[in-house]
Amino acid sequence: MLSKLTQRFKNRPELDPGLGTKVVTPKSRLILPDGSFHVRRTGLPWWERTTPYQWLGQISWPAFACMALVGYAFTNTLFAFAYLGIGLNHLQGTVAGTFWQDLREAWFFSAQTLTTVGYGRISPEGTLSSSLAAFEALVGLMGFGVWTGLVFSRFSRARSKILFARHSVVAPYKEGLAWMFRMVASHDHPLLDADAYVLFTWVEAGPQGPVRRYQDLVLERSAVRFFPMNWTLVHPIGDDSPLNGLTAADLEEIDAEIMVLVRAHDETYGQTVHSRSSWKARDILFGARYAPMMSSGLDGATEIDLSALGKIESVAM
Amino acid sequence: MLSKLTQRFKNRPELDPGLGTKVVTPKSRLILPDGSFHVRRTGLPWWERTTPYQWLGQISWPAFACMALVGYAFTNTLFAFAYLGIGLNHLQGTVAGTFWQDLREAWFFSAQTLTTVGYGRISPEGTLSSSLAAFEALVGLMGFGVWTGLVFSRFSRARSKILFARHSVVAPYKEGLAWMFRMVASHDHPLLDADAYVLFTWVEAGPQGPVRRYQDLVLERSAVRFFPMNWTLVHPIGDDSPLNGLTAADLEEIDAEIMVLVRAHDETYGQTVHSRSSWKARDILFGARYAPMMSSGLDGATEIDLSALGKIESVAM
Amino acid sequence: MLSKLTQRFKNRPELDPGLGTKVVTPKSRLILPDGSFHVRRTGLPWWERTTPYQWLGQISWPAFACMALVGYAFTNTLFAFAYLGIGLNHLQGTVAGTFWQDLREAWFFSAQTLTTVGYGRISPEGTLSSSLAAFEALVGLMGFGVWTGLVFSRFSRARSKILFARHSVVAPYKEGLAWMFRMVASHDHPLLDADAYVLFTWVEAGPQGPVRRYQDLVLERSAVRFFPMNWTLVHPIGDDSPLNGLTAADLEEIDAEIMVLVRAHDETYGQTVHSRSSWKARDILFGARYAPMMSSGLDGATEIDLSALGKIESVAM
Amino acid sequence: MLSKLTQRFKNRPELDPGLGTKVVTPKSRLILPDGSFHVRRTGLPWWERTTPYQWLGQISWPAFACMALVGYAFTNTLFAFAYLGIGLNHLQGTVAGTFWQDLREAWFFSAQTLTTVGYGRISPEGTLSSSLAAFEALVGLMGFGVWTGLVFSRFSRARSKILFARHSVVAPYKEGLAWMFRMVASHDHPLLDADAYVLFTWVEAGPQGPVRRYQDLVLERSAVRFFPMNWTLVHPIGDDSPLNGLTAADLEEIDAEIMVLVRAHDETYGQTVHSRSSWKARDILFGARYAPMMSSGLDGATEIDLSALGKIESVAM
Repeated sequence: MLSKLTQRFKNRPELDPGLGTKVVTPKSRLILPDGSFHVRRTGLPWWERTTPYQWLGQISWPAFACMALVGYAFTNTLFAFAYLGIGLNHLQGTVAGTFWQDLREAWFFSAQTLTTVGYGRISPEGTLSSSLAAFEALVGLMGFGVWTGLVFSRFSRARSKILFARHSVVAPYKEGLAWMFRMVASHDHPLLDADAYVLFTWVEAGPQGPVRRYQDLVLERSAVRFFPMNWTLVHPIGDDSPLNGLTAADLEEIDAEIMVLVRAHDETYGQTVHSRSSWKARDILFGARYAPMMSSGLDGATEIDLSALGKIESVAM
Repeated sequence: MLSKLTQRFKNRPELDPGLGTKVVTPKSRLILPDGSFHVRRTGLPWWERTTPYQWLGQISWPAFACMALVGYAFTNTLFAFAYLGIGLNHLQGTVAGTFWQDLREAWFFSAQTLTTVGYGRISPEGTLSSSLAAFEALVGLMGFGVWTGLVFSRFSRARSKILFARHSVVAPYKEGLAWMFRMVASHDHPLLDADAYVLFTWVEAGPQGPVRRYQDLVLERSAVRFFPMNWTLVHPIGDDSPLNGLTAADLEEIDAEIMVLVRAHDETYGQTVHSRSSWKARDILFGARYAPMMSSGLDGATEIDLSALGKIESVAM
Repeated sequence: MLSKLTQRFKNRPELDPGLGTKVVTPKSRLILPDGSFHVRRTGLPWWERTTPYQWLGQISWPAFACMALVGYAFTNTLFAFAYLGIGLNHLQGTVAGTFWQDLREAWFFSAQTLTTVGYGRISPEGTLSSSLAAFEALVGLMGFGVWTGLVFSRFSRARSKILFARHSVVAPYKEGLAWMFRMVASHDHPLLDADAYVLFTWVEAGPQGPVRRYQDLVLERSAVRFFPMNWTLVHPIGDDSPLNGLTAADLEEIDAEIMVLVRAHDETYGQTVHSRSSWKARDILFGARYAPMMSSGLDGATEIDLSALGKIESVAM
Repeated sequence: MLSKLTQRFKNRPELDPGLGTKVVTPKSRLILPDGSFHVRRTGLPWWERTTPYQWLGQISWPAFACMALVGYAFTNTLFAFAYLGIGLNHLQGTVAGTFWQDLREAWFFSAQTLTTVGYGRISPEGTLSSSLAAFEALVGLMGFGVWTGLVFSRFSRARSKILFARHSVVAPYKEGLAWMFRMVASHDHPLLDADAYVLFTWVEAGPQGPVRRYQDLVLERSAVRFFPMNWTLVHPIGDDSPLNGLTAADLEEIDAEIMVLVRAHDETYGQTVHSRSSWKARDILFGARYAPMMSSGLDGATEIDLSALGKIESVAM
């Protein structure tokens, strides 16, 4: 079986997309379902490998707000202890008491300074505590500037992605069979000038151990000008197709993976967005087709039910 | 009539731009006059389908400011009730009175904290109210950071669009007829490297119900390097044109729609802007032409009267 | 003379870059020396034709800061009068005096609220003035958010431009003559993948009045991968060149203008920047060449003297 | 030796990438190892040649924060002296003392105003000091807006770069030799659609002094769709290669330099990033190859050890 595939493409150029032909970890995915590469980078500390901008794209708003709260409480407490160290008698308006009462007074004064509220019931007296308060207010403003910058970073990131159906399908098409997958824009942003590229990869025995091979799957139509609806991409399994003659068991045996890379222009952000996904043998259903997602709305608009993206109907082969 | 059109293009490839050949809702537009697609997406809650960035492009500045005001009043009132719950005696500087007097005092203290004004006539006393005030000031700053981020989001969005004349026209041109439309940049931003693509779509009977067909309309010149003035695009109705021989009544009958997609580089934003529009049969005037928009200014500059974009003069066919 | 030019290009396609063939204003420039188009747009109010983002690119930092100061003083005064209207007795800590003394007290209280300083020597008392103060603090924060957004808008705009020598020159080159111009990046940002396009335009008599014609000037090398130094573009005046055989007087007579459009990728901003310029007949010097700008620095770096960009030496023709 | 190189490429076009053929400074690099051009621009003051946006990309966060601190202290002191000039008796809540005590009081009041904390223990009295305080608070807010804008500028800059191995190598490859270099993305951002261009430059004697020549080195594969791992680029030294027959000493003699320009799409920032590097003769190791960087992780992911990027093994030639 393997030798057949090998021979069929022996005159075609290698199509390694940059993932290498060496099989480092057998039977593992190259691309995870969420589109990230199955690669871990080590040897450099994480703070040299990431940026706030990237990192912010990965945490939720509640976690982000929580982070600010913790940073605030921590900084505040630090300054509170510093005021205690200088002496509570340098904070006019406070009365010395137990340690915890003193800490409380210092803590609240610190908070009123860090946020620049400054009620004034407590106010600094003496060079040391006044200087510290002046510094703390600056720290507060600077930290708040960082927060604002981070907030905007989150807003301005193009989050538009393409949602892919969980399973791709193989179904009768015209006179033969076709492998198909369906996708839809994740957000209501208009996507334009979309194009898709599909790559089939498998592993075969080589003289120096297993080798990964790549061939592309030609699509009937690989680009659209507008992408406001669902889009089903069709690869007819002709004589030239690497999928020709393969069964589900074959795909499993050769450790096949179908990868798709979609590019589109997001009009709202004015940026090109990329989305990737991949299907391993178990995600490819033979004798199935996608259920319709479109219907006619009351006011003449076409309605698309996004929740039906992955809905499958069985079909006779 | 329909069969003629069908036959004429039977050897030409399908040009579906991504809107599908299935007629989901007969006699409805594919693209609305403002360029949005006539599609409604359901099946996912709206907050998963939109982003603040996109949503902000749709509301006006007064509505946006109003939103901030309401959010402020709401948050403020929430905290005011919390202070009341803790007890007005923990707000130093207030005198307990009727419920409404108490609420008023708490509300104003809350506002002075949320905005970090902190006059200090009223100030928190005791752990609970002091902690709440420290938290409220943080919430105020964070909310304000979000506001600032949103404001900048609005500023940074490329709003440059292309204005299209309300009607497109069919008029004598050279030895025959031509279909034409006129457009102009909506803003004074220099637009560069503009190109236009025009697609003609109609509906015809198919073996499994009505089918939507697409053919492009070839333009005499479809790209310009500079786009500082008005630009009239001309499709000569030659033998190859889908419009050849069609009357206004024919266009109505076959549910015709002419869609245009214009792309240009906005120098001010450094982004590519896309604009779309479409004309149904009733928006296509036969025997009309556009009135001039340009005149000579006093200082040698060419003057363009934007209000004359859609001005039409009748012309003998 | 004119007819010769006309005939020479009668078999070449029209190259109108989007500026039209109609001569609206004779003897005037199409592109001003700063690269803007010589077009005035009317018929729509200015606030519909511009955006804060664009407008901000045109005013200086001092003017921008001044604008903020005036806006602040104006808003502050407005609120001061409102406090006066409510009555100075609702501002605790003030003593009623003459009108001007009252206004002064109200004005300073207003400033302390608008900036959220809130010293507290004066503080609002009563529902009306307290509400107004709560509102004013919000207005202050919102206005300040707008300021911050505008500041960032200014920072984030790609300002990188290309400086063009004031005069272009015609000088001996290889076996014949060549028209040349020199340019250099305005900022120290690395510019990459630069390309230039040059268009020659002239006016000639047509059956329905004067007509503007366009032909491009072919450059010996029109693109470079790196653009860190000065770049002199060379158009050899061969038999195909529209400039062939023309004298300075000829250029004046046919109202010639040479326009150049340069595109480059600004690595710092990650954006494509466009620059334009044009030379009329009087800006084209015959028998001149550019003086060198480059010299060898002490540490092995090449030094470029930007002030010598337009320096000209005469050369025998 | 030189004449051989000259003759071999006499029929090939010049490939000057924009760095010029004139040898301004002999034996110096054209591109520094960090990718910047070895060019110094003079003749214009620095503030006309740089922008805050660019400048911010070059300083570290601690330096940036320090800058804010110094600016704050300076402005604060300026205003403090102004309050002293008006007279300490116009700052209610202070007691006149020695000059240094007065300055201290004025300084802390100034700080409380600039940061808009405004405790209120000290507050301005009289028109002059009140006006100054109103102005100072505005200055504080404006300066803070600038800080916030700068912070976001730093966040939003695409910092993704490509790390190049310190040495490039010449090693046996297939039936002959090949020149190779290895690179890896500096950050964990997914890089897509990467392509590389390599240029070989050397100096040879010309009739009017030394001349710099350029020829490109053809790569076996110069583009990848995905770039999540390390990528070793291979230039087979065939008959057409400028490197054919050259030894390390030859490279030194002809002042050779190999420059590489890599472009990739950074998915996180939605921008194209460019990286450059160059190798002089001493950075090119003959008879060496790169040690492996990839290994198999526990969970099926491929692990890349970034610290091994420049690791070299010797190999028999």
